[in-house]
Amino acid sequence: MQTFTRLDARSSDFEQGFAALLSAKREVSRDVDEAAAAIIADVVARGDAALRDLSAKFDRVDLAALGLRVTRDEIAAAAGQVPDATRAALTLARDRILAFHARQKPQDQFWTDAEGVELGWRWSAIRAVGLYVPGGTAAYPSSVLMNAIPAKVAGCERVVIVVPSPDGLLNPLVLLAADLAGVDEIYRVGGAQAVAALAYGTETIAPVSKIVGPGNAYVAAAKRRVFGKVGIDMIAGPSEVVVLADRTANPDHVAADLLAQAEHDAVAQSILVTDDDGLAAAVAAAVARQLETLPRRAIAEASWRDFGAIIRVESLAAAVPLVDRLAPEHLEIIAADAEELSRRIRDAGAIFLGPHTPEAIGDYVGGSNHVLPTARSARFASGLGVLDFMKRTSVLRCDAAALAALGPAAVALGQAEGLDAHARSVAMRLGG
Amino acid sequence: MQTFTRLDARSSDFEQGFAALLSAKREVSRDVDEAAAAIIADVVARGDAALRDLSAKFDRVDLAALGLRVTRDEIAAAAGQVPDATRAALTLARDRILAFHARQKPQDQFWTDAEGVELGWRWSAIRAVGLYVPGGTAAYPSSVLMNAIPAKVAGCERVVIVVPSPDGLLNPLVLLAADLAGVDEIYRVGGAQAVAALAYGTETIAPVSKIVGPGNAYVAAAKRRVFGKVGIDMIAGPSEVVVLADRTANPDHVAADLLAQAEHDAVAQSILVTDDDGLAAAVAAAVARQLETLPRRAIAEASWRDFGAIIRVESLAAAVPLVDRLAPEHLEIIAADAEELSRRIRDAGAIFLGPHTPEAIGDYVGGSNHVLPTARSARFASGLGVLDFMKRTSVLRCDAAALAALGPAAVALGQAEGLDAHARSVAMRLGG
Repeated sequence: MQTFTRLDARSSDFEQGFAALLSAKREVSRDVDEAAAAIIADVVARGDAALRDLSAKFDRVDLAALGLRVTRDEIAAAAGQVPDATRAALTLARDRILAFHARQKPQDQFWTDAEGVELGWRWSAIRAVGLYVPGGTAAYPSSVLMNAIPAKVAGCERVVIVVPSPDGLLNPLVLLAADLAGVDEIYRVGGAQAVAALAYGTETIAPVSKIVGPGNAYVAAAKRRVFGKVGIDMIAGPSEVVVLADRTANPDHVAADLLAQAEHDAVAQSILVTDDDGLAAAVAAAVARQLETLPRRAIAEASWRDFGAIIRVESLAAAVPLVDRLAPEHLEIIAADAEELSRRIRDAGAIFLGPHTPEAIGDYVGGSNHVLPTARSARFASGLGVLDFMKRTSVLRCDAAALAALGPAAVALGQAEGLDAHARSVAMRLGG
Repeated sequence: MQTFTRLDARSSDFEQGFAALLSAKREVSRDVDEAAAAIIADVVARGDAALRDLSAKFDRVDLAALGLRVTRDEIAAAAGQVPDATRAALTLARDRILAFHARQKPQDQFWTDAEGVELGWRWSAIRAVGLYVPGGTAAYPSSVLMNAIPAKVAGCERVVIVVPSPDGLLNPLVLLAADLAGVDEIYRVGGAQAVAALAYGTETIAPVSKIVGPGNAYVAAAKRRVFGKVGIDMIAGPSEVVVLADRTANPDHVAADLLAQAEHDAVAQSILVTDDDGLAAAVAAAVARQLETLPRRAIAEASWRDFGAIIRVESLAAAVPLVDRLAPEHLEIIAADAEELSRRIRDAGAIFLGPHTPEAIGDYVGGSNHVLPTARSARFASGLGVLDFMKRTSVLRCDAAALAALGPAAVALGQAEGLDAHARSVAMRLGG
């Protein structure tokens, strides 16, 4: 029977096995591009009518009867269904996420340089943004907070949620989280049609300028297609964690953290990297033991079997370049010198330090964002933040003296590039 | 004969005409997606051999003879061909772009909150980035500086240029600019095949993690396809300028600035917005007059005829919402209260203030970046900058007391979301 991958960085065939781990295809790849394109064209052509027809077909829901927009009354009713303890936990999460992201607001900068040129830039919020929220079991209220709060901190005036309602059902926790986050509008529509509605607008849904949030393959294909017309965030892949641990780590805790990742998705990935054979063996045993009583056992077991790995390294210091190559979405470091090791890691979405910081804290109540770069994209991308909902306008002002100082070089470059009108627009002002 | 568009914001049919201006399709749209996909697959399968075959076919160049990588000797020889005045101008531009972008380097932030949680984030450079440089007439050395310098300021170790060499020719100015900017590697390959080589790597070209820079429709299609595997910048559209001017503006200068934009491309767009009939008439006349002696007259004339516009408004203050709707790549404000007006504009890529700041200064030597959001994307996107070449890693650390304070809420949310392994990974540490 196939089991998780075991690798030893000290063995001669390690590089081959590690490369295979890096390139393991975890994406569910289907040819959904054509279908997404057809759906977008339909929504552009027929607006709300297309949303009604597509929702009837895919979600078995009658939008003509229910209305596209979720009403204040529905939100209030949903919020009333949520137990007090859950509401309190969501409110704590909201407050902590808000406090964390408030520190991300960028500063404008203006200065005058030695030539007398006034320079700088001004940040401003994107006016309207859309947040895709998946329906069904993957409808996580915590993700609503993580996507909507940075947008509100940025100052976006319209934060709009689209969420499918299969068979007419909406998750009350999602509506409560949207309400706690200050979301302005909620529409019960999902799939590529919801992305199209956000990008192009319909009679009922005014268009937005940027669309964020995870979705299935159709949603991802639609986002890729509308990119340029609107901004989009990264295309989210399956979740992943690397735990870098030494003998000081509690194997039960490490196993629990690996399984917390694995239970997300059969194509999620959990990897332990350790310099201790005892820990490796104890974690492998603990994973097997904990799986037995896990409600989402089938999913977690498939993930661990197909994509899980334990990598034995000579020392945790020697593991740093391997971790950077994995560029994990989440990295836990449970080791004596966790802090020092973390400063040497460059390519990771988020790092969780020490024995008391399970990654799940970051998923919910740490305050940092849990929307993080997957599939090795931490090499070039950041987690979601306030900057994703703002843009920068540069400002330049020359007086006559500054233009006299810089103008001749601009004229020379315009001419060198064969752009004479550029050169002229400057030369004319130099009195030349 | 068709001429530029005239609109009057005070007339009853203004909204219709303005909406038409906003939605004018300026993209050259062709179905190049399939071709780009086939080229990418070929490069993935055959590496350098595919680059050689495709370059022979599209660029009539023998890479087997010339070598894929441009050598130090070639760069030195090209630099030797550039006149001193041009070199001095490029060097001035380099220094000013460097100084401007050095101010964009972000700060790490770490703090401990009231619950004792240590929080923060660390910025780091993307290790390797690729810069696409178009060949032929659109090979602008200034664009090489604008793309490469922010990457070097960010701290990228490998800044790699790909540039097609039609018939074996390379622009010496491009090579000199690359050298001045500190570019690390230059390969003479273009098109979708160059994008594929950067994203997937070949025997000669090591892969990069992000690809920036403008290109033709095939390059844009290829970038869209490799998005996710690597990061990409915005898909650049045709250039555009809005000049917001009152009666204090010199009509010859305004006309020159409109034409400097128009000469880029027959689908570039230049728009004057003014509250002064005299200025409107004088600018229209000056454009016609200046066109007569412009080397790139055919291009500029087509652009002005098909996409140019003069919009008469009641007051410049009343024009502010119109400018935001246009969300221009470049905005010049030549008016008595330019500064005050500029603060009320929210959606523009870059703003040039006053009579002595022609947009061409910003193209070359102002210091700010000339890679700016086109096609109304200033509503949600920024000009290129240092942040585009960096990424942020969040860091979180709880001690036992902090986990005790936050843990129960995380357990509650994990259970509410049906993610029991998440809840367990926290509960287990609470001694529960």
